[in-house]
Amino acid sequence: MYIAPSGVQKERIQPAHIFVLPYPQPDGDRVFLRRPTVPLKESACTPLFWNAFTLRGAGSCIHTHSQHAVMATLLFGEGEGAEFRLSHQEMIKGVRRGGTGPALSYLDTLVVPIIENTPDEEDLKESMAEAMEKYPDAAGVLVRRHGVYVWGAYAGRANAKDADIGSPGSDWEKAKTQAEVRRFALSYSQLTPGRYHSALTISLRLGSR
Amino acid sequence: MYIAPSGVQKERIQPAHIFVLPYPQPDGDRVFLRRPTVPLKESACTPLFWNAFTLRGAGSCIHTHSQHAVMATLLFGEGEGAEFRLSHQEMIKGVRRGGTGPALSYLDTLVVPIIENTPDEEDLKESMAEAMEKYPDAAGVLVRRHGVYVWGAYAGRANAKDADIGSPGSDWEKAKTQAEVRRFALSYSQLTPGRYHSALTISLRLGSR
Amino acid sequence: MYIAPSGVQKERIQPAHIFVLPYPQPDGDRVFLRRPTVPLKESACTPLFWNAFTLRGAGSCIHTHSQHAVMATLLFGEGEGAEFRLSHQEMIKGVRRGGTGPALSYLDTLVVPIIENTPDEEDLKESMAEAMEKYPDAAGVLVRRHGVYVWGAYAGRANAKDADIGSPGSDWEKAKTQAEVRRFALSYSQLTPGRYHSALTISLRLGSR
Amino acid sequence: MYIAPSGVQKERIQPAHIFVLPYPQPDGDRVFLRRPTVPLKESACTPLFWNAFTLRGAGSCIHTHSQHAVMATLLFGEGEGAEFRLSHQEMIKGVRRGGTGPALSYLDTLVVPIIENTPDEEDLKESMAEAMEKYPDAAGVLVRRHGVYVWGAYAGRANAKDADIGSPGSDWEKAKTQAEVRRFALSYSQLTPGRYHSALTISLRLGSR
Repeated sequence: MYIAPSGVQKERIQPAHIFVLPYPQPDGDRVFLRRPTVPLKESACTPLFWNAFTLRGAGSCIHTHSQHAVMATLLFGEGEGAEFRLSHQEMIKGVRRGGTGPALSYLDTLVVPIIENTPDEEDLKESMAEAMEKYPDAAGVLVRRHGVYVWGAYAGRANAKDADIGSPGSDWEKAKTQAEVRRFALSYSQLTPGRYHSALTISLRLGSR
Repeated sequence: MYIAPSGVQKERIQPAHIFVLPYPQPDGDRVFLRRPTVPLKESACTPLFWNAFTLRGAGSCIHTHSQHAVMATLLFGEGEGAEFRLSHQEMIKGVRRGGTGPALSYLDTLVVPIIENTPDEEDLKESMAEAMEKYPDAAGVLVRRHGVYVWGAYAGRANAKDADIGSPGSDWEKAKTQAEVRRFALSYSQLTPGRYHSALTISLRLGSR
Repeated sequence: MYIAPSGVQKERIQPAHIFVLPYPQPDGDRVFLRRPTVPLKESACTPLFWNAFTLRGAGSCIHTHSQHAVMATLLFGEGEGAEFRLSHQEMIKGVRRGGTGPALSYLDTLVVPIIENTPDEEDLKESMAEAMEKYPDAAGVLVRRHGVYVWGAYAGRANAKDADIGSPGSDWEKAKTQAEVRRFALSYSQLTPGRYHSALTISLRLGSR
Repeated sequence: MYIAPSGVQKERIQPAHIFVLPYPQPDGDRVFLRRPTVPLKESACTPLFWNAFTLRGAGSCIHTHSQHAVMATLLFGEGEGAEFRLSHQEMIKGVRRGGTGPALSYLDTLVVPIIENTPDEEDLKESMAEAMEKYPDAAGVLVRRHGVYVWGAYAGRANAKDADIGSPGSDWEKAKTQAEVRRFALSYSQLTPGRYHSALTISLRLGSR
């Protein structure tokens, strides 16, 4: 597994900055095959990425602090059982059931659970895993006042060429597409203040559930 | 005709990813002269692009899932006969009557029909064609909760140089200009929440119709 | 004078696309020393650019259809005498009195007249000139439902190096800075819908006038 | 110390445009070891940058006229003692106590004092210094109707490679990260007009203070 370093802007990451971990996961979730020689730390999300790899067989996982994700966690319900829901949007066809299964249809409802934040990011591991088990179809998890985790399929059948990061059809491309759909859905829900409720209500009323 | 592949970011498309189709259209709308050798699918919009080529003689067609387009379809009327209208905006001079005719004047009203979405994109072909026939002056079609289709003129008289994608005056440039005008118009209509109605009312009241 | 072609994206303009006009202005405002050999038209704003060159001795002039500029013309007064006013913003120090004079101070009020649009852009020449004479300190003119014109100083004393487009201190850089200040001011005035009035009122109340 | 020139777009600054000053600061705050040979002025913020270097031992300092910063100074209190406060946001973990100390935790409250603007930027030096002394934990200072100053740690232990501007872990990177967190926090506070109060109230109610 390849993990990005903490505190380096994504555009500036060099191959030598990447942490390499064995898969399947051995005793700990921070056992490294290779570490950067420059003084860098692995992403604090490392244990959470393992959730996506282990519980979903994901091939890639993205975490962002998107403002729209953060705001969505404030707008869509409080406490346990909070969810972000959206239906009847063409863009949800870009999301895969559970992140790695078949694509959602236009008639489906995208559901993303919202979990509470913790002071130490790694303490999210358990509650994130619980939400993933409770929502087997969810292709991501929102973290209140923090951001979102999104993952994509592991292309087990991929040949060397397909596995290139960024090649069409690669895991990375798939996770990125799903992250962009999420960005669209979340910002869409906040596009017109005061209207997101009714927009959402229309979605649910016409929805397939 | 050149059709982009599905699921590849537009910035990453390589010439070898492009599908080539014969024109005029033979028996089916997915007959290919050439296909990419890598495992890619043609855009799901292919049958809809043919609408622009066949019914309008367009030289290029763009489809987007723009948030502003999607929001406009929620704000401007429901059901059959829904339209997006805008007048008295300098920017509408960048739109051509029917997409391929003479440019609109500042005194004209830009009208874009809104059709309902379908679970399978290719099922939009008929309702899009109907809207194009009912609105011969429309230079685009909005699809509810989905996005927008915009097309540009076929430069029949273009010499080889002009036909270069992206050269000044090329078809592609013309469709792109019209897509940008649309983006401007749609986002403009949503710029100040709670004001778009009055802005629109002012437009219509002062309008030439 | 160098004038950009119409309908070509600014990032794609090649030197060979530029129209060259004599200065001072001879009989007509569209007399050319050189024209592109490809079939392009000069910007429809050409006569309006001459206003800036002739009435203000400007060295460069920029015209945009900025959404914020358009929206400002709808928000700040109707009919004759409409003005956009802003004071007590550090950014207005980037604007020069009349566009070519000394910089405004933090205690000054930025005033930009708003004129009505016309179907043909060149018909704006006279009303723009009138507004420039009525507002000798204005460094730009807003056109209702259309956009904004902004100009910068002619660096009469500039040596060849300074005159390079884009070099620090060049005319172009100065006009661009002023255009960016205007963009800031206009979008700032619309940042929080429903608050721009009070923000503006605070500005005026504390203003130096 | 390296100071950027005034009035040059940041993307166009060449090494030869940079002013070099001695550290520690001698008699005046504008004593130069080297000046550009082209006619440029040092940034008007020069005396204010010295505040960050002298009072905090900062290794870098950034000043912007961000719209969100300006708007925050209008939204969060008037007169003396005004502060921008935010808590329970994952992003505040990117800010260091006092700008150069240990990182804030998720349970901390980010506090940034707001000082009044002055017509001449250098006259801010004293009030900025006062605010920095009154708020030893603040990692930045907001200036009403003007912008924000943010600084980062001086990496005294940095080797030559780490000290490269932009290298992971460099001072510049650290100040930039903190500036981005501030941009996030400020724009977040304004994301949904009419909601920032309640969002903030929730923050404070749940806050650790």
